[in-house]
Amino acid sequence: MKKLTFLFLFITTFSFAQFQRVEPAFWWKGMKNPELQILLYGKNIAQQNIELSDGIQIKDLTKVENPNYVFITINTNEINTPKFKIFLKNGKKTISTYQYELKERTPNSSARESYTSKDVFYLIMPDRFANGDEKNDSSKSLIEKANRKSEGGRHGGDLRGIINNLDYLKNLGVTTLWLTPVCEDNEKAYTYHGYAQTDLYKIDARYGTNEEYRELSTELKKRDMKLVKDYVTNHWGVSHWLIQDLPTKDWIHWFEDGKNGFKRSNYRTNSQMNPYAADVDKKVALDGWFDTTMPDLNQSNPLVLKYLIQNAIWWIEYAQLDGYRVDTYPYNDKDGMAKWCKAITDEYPNFNIVGETWMYDPAQIAFWQKDSKVGEIENYNSNLPSVMDFMLYENLPKALQEEENWDKGMIRLYNSFASDFLFPNPKNMMVFFENHDTPRINEMFNGNPAYYKLALTIVSTIRGIPQLYYGSEIGMRGDKNKGDADIRRDFPGGWKGDAQNAFVSRTPEQNEFFDYTQKLLNWRKSKDVIHNGKTKNFSPERNVYVYFRYNDEEKVMVVINSSDKEQIIEMNRFQEMVPSSFTAKDVMKDATVQIKNLLTIPAKSSLILEINK
Amino acid sequence: MKKLTFLFLFITTFSFAQFQRVEPAFWWKGMKNPELQILLYGKNIAQQNIELSDGIQIKDLTKVENPNYVFITINTNEINTPKFKIFLKNGKKTISTYQYELKERTPNSSARESYTSKDVFYLIMPDRFANGDEKNDSSKSLIEKANRKSEGGRHGGDLRGIINNLDYLKNLGVTTLWLTPVCEDNEKAYTYHGYAQTDLYKIDARYGTNEEYRELSTELKKRDMKLVKDYVTNHWGVSHWLIQDLPTKDWIHWFEDGKNGFKRSNYRTNSQMNPYAADVDKKVALDGWFDTTMPDLNQSNPLVLKYLIQNAIWWIEYAQLDGYRVDTYPYNDKDGMAKWCKAITDEYPNFNIVGETWMYDPAQIAFWQKDSKVGEIENYNSNLPSVMDFMLYENLPKALQEEENWDKGMIRLYNSFASDFLFPNPKNMMVFFENHDTPRINEMFNGNPAYYKLALTIVSTIRGIPQLYYGSEIGMRGDKNKGDADIRRDFPGGWKGDAQNAFVSRTPEQNEFFDYTQKLLNWRKSKDVIHNGKTKNFSPERNVYVYFRYNDEEKVMVVINSSDKEQIIEMNRFQEMVPSSFTAKDVMKDATVQIKNLLTIPAKSSLILEINK
Repeated sequence: MKKLTFLFLFITTFSFAQFQRVEPAFWWKGMKNPELQILLYGKNIAQQNIELSDGIQIKDLTKVENPNYVFITINTNEINTPKFKIFLKNGKKTISTYQYELKERTPNSSARESYTSKDVFYLIMPDRFANGDEKNDSSKSLIEKANRKSEGGRHGGDLRGIINNLDYLKNLGVTTLWLTPVCEDNEKAYTYHGYAQTDLYKIDARYGTNEEYRELSTELKKRDMKLVKDYVTNHWGVSHWLIQDLPTKDWIHWFEDGKNGFKRSNYRTNSQMNPYAADVDKKVALDGWFDTTMPDLNQSNPLVLKYLIQNAIWWIEYAQLDGYRVDTYPYNDKDGMAKWCKAITDEYPNFNIVGETWMYDPAQIAFWQKDSKVGEIENYNSNLPSVMDFMLYENLPKALQEEENWDKGMIRLYNSFASDFLFPNPKNMMVFFENHDTPRINEMFNGNPAYYKLALTIVSTIRGIPQLYYGSEIGMRGDKNKGDADIRRDFPGGWKGDAQNAFVSRTPEQNEFFDYTQKLLNWRKSKDVIHNGKTKNFSPERNVYVYFRYNDEEKVMVVINSSDKEQIIEMNRFQEMVPSSFTAKDVMKDATVQIKNLLTIPAKSSLILEINK
Repeated sequence: MKKLTFLFLFITTFSFAQFQRVEPAFWWKGMKNPELQILLYGKNIAQQNIELSDGIQIKDLTKVENPNYVFITINTNEINTPKFKIFLKNGKKTISTYQYELKERTPNSSARESYTSKDVFYLIMPDRFANGDEKNDSSKSLIEKANRKSEGGRHGGDLRGIINNLDYLKNLGVTTLWLTPVCEDNEKAYTYHGYAQTDLYKIDARYGTNEEYRELSTELKKRDMKLVKDYVTNHWGVSHWLIQDLPTKDWIHWFEDGKNGFKRSNYRTNSQMNPYAADVDKKVALDGWFDTTMPDLNQSNPLVLKYLIQNAIWWIEYAQLDGYRVDTYPYNDKDGMAKWCKAITDEYPNFNIVGETWMYDPAQIAFWQKDSKVGEIENYNSNLPSVMDFMLYENLPKALQEEENWDKGMIRLYNSFASDFLFPNPKNMMVFFENHDTPRINEMFNGNPAYYKLALTIVSTIRGIPQLYYGSEIGMRGDKNKGDADIRRDFPGGWKGDAQNAFVSRTPEQNEFFDYTQKLLNWRKSKDVIHNGKTKNFSPERNVYVYFRYNDEEKVMVVINSSDKEQIIEMNRFQEMVPSSFTAKDVMKDATVQIKNLLTIPAKSSLILEINK
């Protein structure tokens, strides 16, 4: 039987060798890096010849262990035709042809702007936000079908649902959408999060089409908003076709002693810096799989790295992306990632990329930011422009609820920001209090909007790029202890027949969250002093934290009282920043206030004052 | 009345102007830095002339606001006589004469060795260790008299008591004594700790004499042991004669709005790095007083700095010191301290100085170590060779008692050591689990010696310079919550008539501590692999932490089981360091053991294996 199969395959191959996949499917002329590597896939095509039309030279042709792959490299600068052909030949006989296109780039594509500290992120899990197109809830070609009753199932949210609600988001005051991955995730189950991708060139049909993704980008631009793609360099889904038929064994990290190559990461990512880390621990940390369905990619394999680089550039160019967020950053091969970031930012010098640097030690986070002096200690430059401020994330809820103590309460934030000296570019850090992997802040504080307002005030007025999570703005709740589904509930009104449509009409409780958010974020939009200003902060006293953002033109005073009592503060203490008496605008109340040395601030509240200069 | 006093002073001055103080009182020939600044003190001496005998030139003569001071600088290289005279003259009339001596240095004084990772520190509070000379318990010239019944009083311990017990300490296996300050502290009360010094050139008479201090040094050297002085650059006692008659107003930090210039430090020393720190907070942190009786010295005043440098060098040369420990390091002016360290280490290139860098953030501690890349971020090089590992101190007790968890239990130590990449010289860090300012570890663990043994094993086998605190070795207890006196109890047997003399005879419970300490420290003495070897550690599993110290010749495996259960570990996991079966020496049992892949380790115990290479 075995022999028979082999014979059958042998015949098939020679009779029907075809291009089954060509990736990238097309490319662009005029890239800074004119070299393009094209992956050609088809049964045993490595045993055939590859030729190009129009006398185009193949600069390099790489064959690998698996004869179903050929990688060819061309120089796009030497190609004068927008379309050319790739021939698969058996001797002189053409047995398959692929028409390759080099498209025109959008003007100024390379010099595109990206997200900066001017922006506010809004993180959406597309499956859980709004179902704009019920026809795509399930797809014939994809295994998992919609089942809104299943917590870990597909609920039907999609790109159309997001496009339909862009005015809501614009009006809310966020400027930049970060969607959790939207490429195809065709695992058997639990696919709605999208982190086990099975086709990196194709939007998951349950979210929509590549064209709809591009439409989302266009619609955002019309509203002066931005699109950030969630990129996963660390792993793919086990059902990815390239994993199912590996080009080379070392395309992924394969553990001989694990089942189907699987060994779980120990998640000890400080082994990236630990001078004493055992090799075995380091290997399991970085090469271990993030989960059983997520084989760990080997970014030190140049073919893998090139694939990831080109795919990332392809999406920027195709969908006019404004930036990337990169998943599980410290789990990757760090040298591979430095090259990945460099290749992208060489091509798009302003392009921003934020890594999910989920560590709590400030130096270990600072290690990952481009041009870091901490990285330099280990002769490393990540080339990663932006990192996530997990110190602030970790300290913020504690700071808001603890009574003041030597190292508790608001002093946590003061101490956390003190470490900014380690960062080459603190204002290019993402600041947040919740995301799709964390408890909902409004759950932690049992629906009391006061805590949300304090947290939002802080992330919106401190240095960095604030990030909200869908539903933050209406006080959505969710308990991480009940599982991820609880922190990823459907947005009310995203589905026809929902009991409530919060996009349109909110309860008074929801509006307390929404109105505050809307007012603060819309105010922030034009405030260069918040985006790029300097910071001066004062050691918290009685759980009142005071800081100033200032530049030559503007000055903003932020007062955060996280204590349970009304507090009176004396302006004399801040005389290096303000006179003891002054006139200011209370931003959230739209009122002019006269400060005469003493300022009274109610319990658990904040004050943002724009001070006339 | 006021006028009368003034008139009286005026007359006194002109009649009786005298040298009341000359500091340093003598100096040495042949120092690398030949310049010497001599402080001359006497009523209105600035209104008189200063001349030197033997045609010696005064290179610089500095007068200050206070006419009672003159600072003269001479070049000792230009002086060919061992003794010369300093004349105070009124016109041509000599009204006071001081005979200055330039002594011969000890051979190789400059190249002296210092403490290193070979050493083990033993910290003594001299007032609380042993009373070797009852005649000096109180002193006519010093205010506070002995009162052993008073918790915060003088108990009578002294240098003679230490000298009498050097064989005990030698036998215990410690190599280096660090005494809390022994210079005169003549405040009214609460002087036993010695940190409010009133004469920097004189041993407090209640501890003994300068000569006895030198005798201690000599006796230590005879035993191949070392003496480290506790230096306080940050503050002096308010009763210091120089503070009582300030040379310049800016000799100390004086707060106009405080009572007698006093304002308490806010102790926020991360303002040294915090890029956003308000000036007012920074000033209060660094210039604020450590306590009411401790005016804060201004090390940015060159006269103050020179005084501190010369005093430090004077003690090294006079008492043949082997090193310094510097108090409250981050509270000082950091540029002044960089100069202080440089001046000392320029003069004695091997001289070690450890700063009390009491911070918990690894980068903030690393900032302070000489040639730190973290310091470099702020263009700072401290020149301070050694820092204290307060991360380990903070994490150790938690690690020993917590159940294992993602970030709890032994993983704390693993994570803590991961930050060593930030340190230019990790092996020159002091490692400890208790000192005179902290809870006693044996109190925390309620007298259970298992915890002490684990802690001692760790600090004695990991990189760094271990430090014990007097009484650690007999399980002395003390609760910081009950006040400092409780963690500074008298060593049993240090006083005649004590119910027990633990120097000579210990209870079985005490011996369990003592014997373990003695065995471990004496083993450590000759182990270059511990002093200077590399480290490889493995991520803890089931609260078992395994690490290796190794070099080309030796290999030591340390297994720490802090779990409540016996654990069995498999050697296969450590194959990069050891074969699965091997022969080793169990250091603490003095037994040869055969390991055959599985190793069983009892609950709350450790194992040190010397592996044959």
